[in-house]
Amino acid sequence: MNIPIDKKLKRVVIIGAGFAGLQVAKKLQRHKYQVILIDKNNYYTFQPLLYQVATSGLEPDSIAHSIRTIITQTKNFFFRLANVYYINTKNNQIYTNVGHLKYDYLIIAVGSVTNYFGNKNIEYFSLPMKSIPEALHLRNTILQSFEYALLTNNEKDKERLMNFVIVGGGPTGVELAGALAEMKKYVLPYDYPDLDIQKMNIHLLQASPRLLDGMSQYSAQQAFNNLKDLGVKIWINCLVKDYDGKVVCTATGQNIESFNVIWAAGVKGALMKGFLKEEIEIKGERILVNNYLRTLNYHNIFAIGDIAYMVSNKHYPNGHPMTASPAIQQGNYIANYFNNFLLEKHKIIKPFIYKNFGSMATIGRNKAVCDFHSFKLKGFVAWIVWMSVHLFSLVGFRNRVIALMNWIIQYFQYHKSVRLIIKPFNRKKKKS
Amino acid sequence: MNIPIDKKLKRVVIIGAGFAGLQVAKKLQRHKYQVILIDKNNYYTFQPLLYQVATSGLEPDSIAHSIRTIITQTKNFFFRLANVYYINTKNNQIYTNVGHLKYDYLIIAVGSVTNYFGNKNIEYFSLPMKSIPEALHLRNTILQSFEYALLTNNEKDKERLMNFVIVGGGPTGVELAGALAEMKKYVLPYDYPDLDIQKMNIHLLQASPRLLDGMSQYSAQQAFNNLKDLGVKIWINCLVKDYDGKVVCTATGQNIESFNVIWAAGVKGALMKGFLKEEIEIKGERILVNNYLRTLNYHNIFAIGDIAYMVSNKHYPNGHPMTASPAIQQGNYIANYFNNFLLEKHKIIKPFIYKNFGSMATIGRNKAVCDFHSFKLKGFVAWIVWMSVHLFSLVGFRNRVIALMNWIIQYFQYHKSVRLIIKPFNRKKKKS
Repeated sequence: MNIPIDKKLKRVVIIGAGFAGLQVAKKLQRHKYQVILIDKNNYYTFQPLLYQVATSGLEPDSIAHSIRTIITQTKNFFFRLANVYYINTKNNQIYTNVGHLKYDYLIIAVGSVTNYFGNKNIEYFSLPMKSIPEALHLRNTILQSFEYALLTNNEKDKERLMNFVIVGGGPTGVELAGALAEMKKYVLPYDYPDLDIQKMNIHLLQASPRLLDGMSQYSAQQAFNNLKDLGVKIWINCLVKDYDGKVVCTATGQNIESFNVIWAAGVKGALMKGFLKEEIEIKGERILVNNYLRTLNYHNIFAIGDIAYMVSNKHYPNGHPMTASPAIQQGNYIANYFNNFLLEKHKIIKPFIYKNFGSMATIGRNKAVCDFHSFKLKGFVAWIVWMSVHLFSLVGFRNRVIALMNWIIQYFQYHKSVRLIIKPFNRKKKKS
Repeated sequence: MNIPIDKKLKRVVIIGAGFAGLQVAKKLQRHKYQVILIDKNNYYTFQPLLYQVATSGLEPDSIAHSIRTIITQTKNFFFRLANVYYINTKNNQIYTNVGHLKYDYLIIAVGSVTNYFGNKNIEYFSLPMKSIPEALHLRNTILQSFEYALLTNNEKDKERLMNFVIVGGGPTGVELAGALAEMKKYVLPYDYPDLDIQKMNIHLLQASPRLLDGMSQYSAQQAFNNLKDLGVKIWINCLVKDYDGKVVCTATGQNIESFNVIWAAGVKGALMKGFLKEEIEIKGERILVNNYLRTLNYHNIFAIGDIAYMVSNKHYPNGHPMTASPAIQQGNYIANYFNNFLLEKHKIIKPFIYKNFGSMATIGRNKAVCDFHSFKLKGFVAWIVWMSVHLFSLVGFRNRVIALMNWIIQYFQYHKSVRLIIKPFNRKKKKS
């Protein structure tokens, strides 16, 4: 992979530049190691705001940031654009689409992917929203649906084009349903006066008995009420069994006709090959780690973020939540460990303990819910807190300014936001 | 195509929502006609700034604008997303990918496409920059070249990855060469410290004896000097004969190794089927029009913008320049004609006369050239004029604000601009 060997320094390879991996790369005292960061994209994605890209609220450049500009490029640091598909734990080597690489220490921070729970139909026909290309594709699909609805004479197809089904009532599903409902209310009647926008339906399907399983009952109820007020049709205890591209089949027998099914029902670890069965949590495809985030059988391999599953943790018996906050804290922990303890064996480090600072979700303009340790917020105050936290979490001055300008302009001129259907580039077929 | 027939109003169909078509749609007194605007995209593209999208200076949302938000949607106005491939001039009907449509009056404003002068190799292997998807693809290709250059051990491939060849020394080629040269100077050394950026070469190939054929000799020389200072290798009298994806062959026998050949050497009309040979200008594939922008054989079909070729025009014997300014003026002329003359046959309208207000091109930071009627500008002053004119030409308050913020931030923090390689979405293959 074309990286010089530094005989004086141990080599640390970090796979994945999400919340966890990037935190390690930033905090690592890079003069102590040769550090190699690998990601399949050249940018970091602020995933909590992907739904705004999907609903034309923000452009990708506001929520993504080039990895090469985030990390100051120093002599011992290397970023490489590559896809890791196998780890040879025996001879300490990773295999990628652009060659292999030896490591002394390996930090796995590859995050998670959409979980279709083994249903190939749903995987093929539904729309995921876990990456920027997926969010842009979803945006195109949403906007095209209305253009196509104008053009078709088939009433059944028109119904399918204007029915939006969101599967999964977690923060992603709730935020997306809210954003779509606001498009219906504030934007679409202006854009499509020759289409009966009242015929647009937004269905939110949740398999469990309530929305926002990870948050308080109080916040879940607030979100439920807010979405109801916005006209979202919420189906609880509603497990999706199948989807053939036209009809969503649920376990309770109801069917919904739709061309637009958005799958936000779950994630699983983005596991690569190379680990034994007993080294992973099979259901969620996550790598088992001990209380020090070290893999069970390899002293020099660590896993952090969504991909890590800490065993025998009494507070989180099913692993930490697969969200930003544990990932960042684990990244910090590992950086601290590498900076202060790893090379000095006599020092003792405490096990990792996750501090839950709370969680939040936004439903729409002036509407959000926040659960903190000792208090809960809702409505306008929660919305301001939500916006501030998210704005502050974006990387870099430029991204914050551009996102803030977009939000301010949209707040006052909602239907003036940008709704472009940018099709991917297709190289002309060669004829000769 | 699902549009109600209005017995009281004549139907005007406008094909294309570029500078020309949009101008007509905006200025037409829409209560006098039923107006149908058709475009293959749902957005209008400000093409003069495409090169900034390609070089990561601006995002697409700054230079594109949703057509549905530009034109106030009124009762008699319809926008439809469709691709027109054939005009049946005999029974007044257009054929599109989503059905056909009758017209009383037809205004063709489809613009132009990249002209490869019949060379299929060049069409297949080179990179065009005539649309937003093409500009984004070019951006990805440029940025990926450096990532790949880091990964390869093949010195020949590394040379090809770091050689950029721009064919065509018009405004597009000059502006793109300048932007690439500034990336080399200000951005890439920070992003790629482990790559020898001095090995990057930017070649600008021009078939004629000087750059900027449409501008004054003075401005062409300024641009030449500025580009030279920035390290661009300029080849004049250099006609490209072929390109096989690896080597550019020129008529004078010099070859340049490169994976990155950007084709900005010419455009031709985006002609659809339906016109007779004698009704078009064969070489440039443009529709012949008389001095009133009416097609030669059809009283109810007009052509404006790049696609129109006015015959027997003594000031512009080879047709008007295929740029924004004639397109906008022709759009205004036709709107005025439809508003005030068409339905009142006794009134007499003057022929269309193009007013040339001047032309300009930017080379880089603080460097531009402007040719006006009675004076010329260069350097910083020209650059400020260029920026103001382009900023003012963007559609909508939001786009101007976002573009201006981006330019200001970049001016002070150049290497902090956003450089994302966003790959297109690929739907998973279905396995069952």
